[in-house]
Amino acid sequence: MSCYAGDMSQRDWRPRYIQVAEELREQIHEGRLSPGEPLHSEPEIAETYGLSRTSVRNAIKLLRNWGLVTVQKGKGTYVRQPPQRVKRDADSRYQWEKDRVVNPEEDRAREGATEADTGLPFERLSFHIAYDTTQADDDLATVFGIAPDTKLLRRIYETRDTADGTSFRSATSYLVYDTVSANPALLDEANEPWPGGTQHQLSTLGIEIDRITDEVTARLPTPEEAHQMGIDEGVVVLCVRKISIDTTDTVAEVSDILMSADRTLLSYTTHLNRWDQ
Amino acid sequence: MSCYAGDMSQRDWRPRYIQVAEELREQIHEGRLSPGEPLHSEPEIAETYGLSRTSVRNAIKLLRNWGLVTVQKGKGTYVRQPPQRVKRDADSRYQWEKDRVVNPEEDRAREGATEADTGLPFERLSFHIAYDTTQADDDLATVFGIAPDTKLLRRIYETRDTADGTSFRSATSYLVYDTVSANPALLDEANEPWPGGTQHQLSTLGIEIDRITDEVTARLPTPEEAHQMGIDEGVVVLCVRKISIDTTDTVAEVSDILMSADRTLLSYTTHLNRWDQ
Repeated sequence: MSCYAGDMSQRDWRPRYIQVAEELREQIHEGRLSPGEPLHSEPEIAETYGLSRTSVRNAIKLLRNWGLVTVQKGKGTYVRQPPQRVKRDADSRYQWEKDRVVNPEEDRAREGATEADTGLPFERLSFHIAYDTTQADDDLATVFGIAPDTKLLRRIYETRDTADGTSFRSATSYLVYDTVSANPALLDEANEPWPGGTQHQLSTLGIEIDRITDEVTARLPTPEEAHQMGIDEGVVVLCVRKISIDTTDTVAEVSDILMSADRTLLSYTTHLNRWDQ
Repeated sequence: MSCYAGDMSQRDWRPRYIQVAEELREQIHEGRLSPGEPLHSEPEIAETYGLSRTSVRNAIKLLRNWGLVTVQKGKGTYVRQPPQRVKRDADSRYQWEKDRVVNPEEDRAREGATEADTGLPFERLSFHIAYDTTQADDDLATVFGIAPDTKLLRRIYETRDTADGTSFRSATSYLVYDTVSANPALLDEANEPWPGGTQHQLSTLGIEIDRITDEVTARLPTPEEAHQMGIDEGVVVLCVRKISIDTTDTVAEVSDILMSADRTLLSYTTHLNRWDQ
């Protein structure tokens, strides 16, 4: 019932392949099989546990779903290096993003939010940023409170770990084009990474963010997303729709952010009013 | 890149089974296949698209992962009734839970948080609550800031939709036993559902909650969890570790909450300080 592992009981009624998958899981958790080590071959596992090849494949599929092994095409199945889960704390992250907007440019340029919350040095991260334009579909029109088909600036931010090529975060940000075009520098992707990030970009338009709502859900990636993020299709992704609202209660930015769930822990703190106030 | 659907382009390079899965997805989205309707049989699909049976099975597996079809044993594959996504807004939910603590009992008894945030009437929900005791493992000991093996009261809350038997939420709550036992009524599951919920229970011990931190991640359920929650193993679950901290900065309660991701949208608002303050 914990978020991290399963407390196993009442084993007996379950199919053999599940029991074998759990046996192998135990071996991995106890370190008898170490990250990077190959799993025994399918025929070996089949023989050891008296299972059919189909059952062995089902067991391996489960291990893959649990994020414990990775299949390298043409090479075999290996125990996966469990990724470091990175905590993304909304309270401190979003306020920090806002605070640095009023810092001098040399301070703003020094560190981005991603380095801060991946905990990795700049050299370990590779960024890919692309701008284009699109039209608001019904969904985005509703969130922004604008007419459908309104022109939007769409910005795609892809952050990868250069060590294994996998994506930390794949974000698509939307801004209302007519608002942003008041400062043409904001329309040019060549100006990225922009010191101070989006909140600073918006500040050049006289926009101050008052609050940010994250709507969080999760699902399996589509094949394209898995391909683009460099992850297995069995790796669950967290989906965050981040809605930034300015001090006039206007939605200034909407971002759809995908993050591998096994690399990410989202943290949100809700402060409650005191009874005696 | 949206959280809800995939924008498909550049189809050609992809394996046929993926293309067929997407063709079927389109048929479902456009209503040509309706919820509750059976999918064509594997041989029929194989013939229509000129695919092998293995590829057809892979295509169906993808549809199942996407939550679009459900396999009923011995009967076949059906288009799944997409569940209603329920918004769980932390700001309003947690403050509401706190506010009602000071309401008269008849008000507290009237409505629970679950009815409020599932949007379903009481009759549609079934509750199962069980208490026992356990000892803090290293993980819980760290979160509570107590010694490992400290005795804990463990409370399991299972909320199901009686319409289809699936679980909205499966929560395991931990309280420090020695703290709680000061009010023996809190040790007896027969007193559940307790009017006003956990925050009222804690108030009888003189404990007031100051803030609640939700740590959110997601994964596939273990086979036991899927079984217990009445969901397919391919349905992604959101995991929330809810940490309630009192006005003396002591962790009063830790809950691990599992929710089907396709029924749940978590919403968190971060309020930012103004630049001119």
